[in-house]
Amino acid sequence: MRQPAPPFCPSLKFIAASLLVLASQLGQAQTAAPAPEVDLATLARIRDAALQSDFAWQRLANLADKIGPRLAGSPGAEAAAAQVGAAMAAAGLAVTQQPVKVPHWERGEERAELVDYAGRPAGITQRLVLTTLGGSAATPAAGLTAPVLLVHGIDELAARAAEVPGKIVLISVPFDQHLADNGLAGAAYGQAGEPRFRGPSVAAKLGAAAVLVRSVGAANYRLPHTGATGFAPGVQPLPAAALSAEDAMLIERLAAEGPVTMKLVLTPRTLPDADGHNVLADLPGREHPDEVVIVSGHLDSWDLGTGAMDDGMGVAAAMGAVQVLKSLGLSPRRTVRMVAWANEENGARGGKAYFESVKGKLPTQVAAIESDFGLGDPLGFFGAISEAELKRLAPVAQVLRSIGAGVMTTRAGEAGTDIEPLQQAGVPGFAPLVDTRHYFDYHHTAADTLDKVDPQALRKQVALLAVLSYALAEMKTPLARVPAGH
Amino acid sequence: MRQPAPPFCPSLKFIAASLLVLASQLGQAQTAAPAPEVDLATLARIRDAALQSDFAWQRLANLADKIGPRLAGSPGAEAAAAQVGAAMAAAGLAVTQQPVKVPHWERGEERAELVDYAGRPAGITQRLVLTTLGGSAATPAAGLTAPVLLVHGIDELAARAAEVPGKIVLISVPFDQHLADNGLAGAAYGQAGEPRFRGPSVAAKLGAAAVLVRSVGAANYRLPHTGATGFAPGVQPLPAAALSAEDAMLIERLAAEGPVTMKLVLTPRTLPDADGHNVLADLPGREHPDEVVIVSGHLDSWDLGTGAMDDGMGVAAAMGAVQVLKSLGLSPRRTVRMVAWANEENGARGGKAYFESVKGKLPTQVAAIESDFGLGDPLGFFGAISEAELKRLAPVAQVLRSIGAGVMTTRAGEAGTDIEPLQQAGVPGFAPLVDTRHYFDYHHTAADTLDKVDPQALRKQVALLAVLSYALAEMKTPLARVPAGH
Repeated sequence: MRQPAPPFCPSLKFIAASLLVLASQLGQAQTAAPAPEVDLATLARIRDAALQSDFAWQRLANLADKIGPRLAGSPGAEAAAAQVGAAMAAAGLAVTQQPVKVPHWERGEERAELVDYAGRPAGITQRLVLTTLGGSAATPAAGLTAPVLLVHGIDELAARAAEVPGKIVLISVPFDQHLADNGLAGAAYGQAGEPRFRGPSVAAKLGAAAVLVRSVGAANYRLPHTGATGFAPGVQPLPAAALSAEDAMLIERLAAEGPVTMKLVLTPRTLPDADGHNVLADLPGREHPDEVVIVSGHLDSWDLGTGAMDDGMGVAAAMGAVQVLKSLGLSPRRTVRMVAWANEENGARGGKAYFESVKGKLPTQVAAIESDFGLGDPLGFFGAISEAELKRLAPVAQVLRSIGAGVMTTRAGEAGTDIEPLQQAGVPGFAPLVDTRHYFDYHHTAADTLDKVDPQALRKQVALLAVLSYALAEMKTPLARVPAGH
Repeated sequence: MRQPAPPFCPSLKFIAASLLVLASQLGQAQTAAPAPEVDLATLARIRDAALQSDFAWQRLANLADKIGPRLAGSPGAEAAAAQVGAAMAAAGLAVTQQPVKVPHWERGEERAELVDYAGRPAGITQRLVLTTLGGSAATPAAGLTAPVLLVHGIDELAARAAEVPGKIVLISVPFDQHLADNGLAGAAYGQAGEPRFRGPSVAAKLGAAAVLVRSVGAANYRLPHTGATGFAPGVQPLPAAALSAEDAMLIERLAAEGPVTMKLVLTPRTLPDADGHNVLADLPGREHPDEVVIVSGHLDSWDLGTGAMDDGMGVAAAMGAVQVLKSLGLSPRRTVRMVAWANEENGARGGKAYFESVKGKLPTQVAAIESDFGLGDPLGFFGAISEAELKRLAPVAQVLRSIGAGVMTTRAGEAGTDIEPLQQAGVPGFAPLVDTRHYFDYHHTAADTLDKVDPQALRKQVALLAVLSYALAEMKTPLARVPAGH
């Protein structure tokens, strides 16, 4: 649905039905929606301009193809910050490179083989495909060889504490694609990801020699999925890696027949913190330039792929959103600020540094959007705000419906890693709702490359972010702050 | 459909319809089929026993999980020959280890990066994912750096001969999955594979420094697909590798903007020929033990995956076929001989050595089946024989129809690489028809692993090979020889 139709137009019945659906979604099935706080025609103009623009696609192609991996501390990360800053300045935005001290972790060698198992012919070993987790410690340079202890979750690991010392622990939890196919990719990630997030620390405390997790992802092409892990304070980090799903299944089969012994070589290095940058690009507000609506993605990406979807798509869409407002000559009441965050993947230092810079003037931070679930078509957006406040954004949903992105819903909690500090301080947080059915096929793998991104899905996401950020910046009064614990 | 039903049974109408379809397939829509040359009840008994057996699955699991890669000349190849021989002897078959001198090629290091291209920020290079082709020569140990010449086929390569000297040639032809989805995976392989088969030799003659091909395969998970290449007599081999599809697409995009320069390190070695073995396991014939029907797959496999589908599935199905006949106490007129070929992938020496061993007694070689298109459900079989001769195998198709494998068709030419020398000498050749829609997702990659094989599809293939090989061995008179050039 585009703009409200004049009375008595030929498709009145269709439009009436659509309005009824909208009203019902707003919980006001029997009454008309209140007059919108922002001009629908302007929102529609933004949407349509976004769908005509290839600015974001060109930014994404430049990031992914010309620079590629952008892990914090790497040359790619700094090249990307410079490239994004230059592109936004060229588009007429006011650019700030905000310094951020970032972790600096390098991958090094990663290889493993099964050196013994029941039924192994003499002279045969089995090469495994795996990738080191961010934050992992190193094995000795020559590797370590130890028996494998196979468990199927953190609970089983804890229950078998006595068996852990000296072992290479494999925590094997498959990714539940069925959940992802049903719009619950986040839940699937949470379930399969728990061993990666928490397992290494738990195993380290119990005296493991190393820990492996089954790769957190859907498609099985012997593709290991990296990602950050962490260790609780006081726990000595140990070598930690993600096995390809196939190799986790192989060990499951072999372990059913007898002991399995592995040789593991991981040589990552944790270097001193490096200089990184959040890139800020402002479209100054016409009434309250000191008040800010953030629209953002994260610029850093894992080192295996080229970060086209995680999160090149999000950062390019945020860049495109501000650029489309600028290109239309729009200047909403408040400043719209594009932020390309420096360090989402392994430290969240970008979001923390930004928060430090604004924590003395938090009322100026009106709302924050982060797009970090890219790849698929956007379906709408969610806000970590109350139902009542969300209704004020009905015009946004209304103009996005014609591009299939008109769903609007509340969802408590973090809308994005980098905006979480702001959210915890009461700033309303938002994120796009997107088709994530295939997101975890590629997430944190070498296969996160530009060819996976549909240019039209990117244009739609630009439209969504532009319309939403404009509306948030244009509303007469800001959205209410969000109480702690919402 | 199982056995012919008695008259007046409840499903008479269905059976009559089915028989009509069968008769139509035989080109005899209006007349009844002739009396079968082999007993349908026996064929049905073989089929049903095969569907109950996990012998083949256990053989496949042992090959793929306990040994893994089995490239000719490797320790895995010899361990596999020993393992297969022992399993067939334990099943009561007469086993022969037939010596074969095989090529011995080892992969070594393989890495590449783009070191210059339009718009490259200072200090940035782009890592590529690629894998060396079997038969490739090595670059200098420190690598070679050269401009990339991008072409889209052998014709364009030849047309641009003047530009070739000193370049790293990339021949980029995408795999046509649409053909594969329509039962034409072989044609898709032929089209996309031509650059791999012929490109290196052509590029070498024109003075290239190295040649790359886009990986021949369907699913794009940054997964490089290896395979053999070859060089014409007198042509000096050059370094040759398959790029992941993503990286071929990346170079296409970058090359559209300006020159691209690559650093390439490939350090394969070609060693002296090694000792390998074809494994033969005979179920002796009751009337003509000297006459042989071959049922076979190839034991060697590429070194990246564990060769579960290419061709663990084929060799395990052939093993299972002979074992099921043995387990039923059957002894057809002629000998059924399981052959696990030593060297399909990079030299076809197994088939050639076998041919040398029988070429003085070719009339004893009655028919040959090779299964080397495994993974999916079998749909039937084809024979490189005349329509008239094929009709004699109607009972085979008839008993396989109930498991969805009742299609029977002629197809000229090679039915399998290893049986091709026999076929060229007039021996009727056969192969299963299988669902190959997803075969090239995994073909010659690290992802060719046991989890890709459906145990029930394997059982069905055992049934097919067992029924077909029994029928060929039991027929009163052998099939007619196939004229040259059929």
